[in-house]
Amino acid sequence: MCTLVRRIKVHHMRASAMADDVRLGVGLNVRRCRLAAGLTQASLAERMGVDRSYVSGLERGHRNPTVLTLWHLAEVLNVRVRDLVDGL
Amino acid sequence: MCTLVRRIKVHHMRASAMADDVRLGVGLNVRRCRLAAGLTQASLAERMGVDRSYVSGLERGHRNPTVLTLWHLAEVLNVRVRDLVDGL
Repeated sequence: MCTLVRRIKVHHMRASAMADDVRLGVGLNVRRCRLAAGLTQASLAERMGVDRSYVSGLERGHRNPTVLTLWHLAEVLNVRVRDLVDGL
Repeated sequence: MCTLVRRIKVHHMRASAMADDVRLGVGLNVRRCRLAAGLTQASLAERMGVDRSYVSGLERGHRNPTVLTLWHLAEVLNVRVRDLVDGL
């Protein structure tokens, strides 16, 4: 495979791996704050007005939430938005 | 107008006003970090691979970026994601 194509492929693989890390980082922060607030995934979902599967997917790093969703989560979890992007 | 309907209307107006504040807060943070990095909107847009109008709309509070977009902005601006959600 020519070097340029290989380099592009490696670049995309790295970018995709970084994106996975970012989503998982947010998920782990949400989980940590949820447990600290003494909430189950179901009770957090209910307060957010979303399905439990959304919270479960978010915590497993399968979602790419917007800043408004992060702000709503922070309000419900009684934390700052920066707590949900800690470490990113 | 019956009290319940009025209360629902007031609730939605407040939620919408809060959403505007969150988007504008992110926009002002992006602008502050962009200027600190000595970049124009055009050069930031080019490094992000987006149109200049996206950066302009983001800084005016008209966008609702995802956490991956915030992460990409932070990488280009050489700041932390939490710097872009400061104050929220």
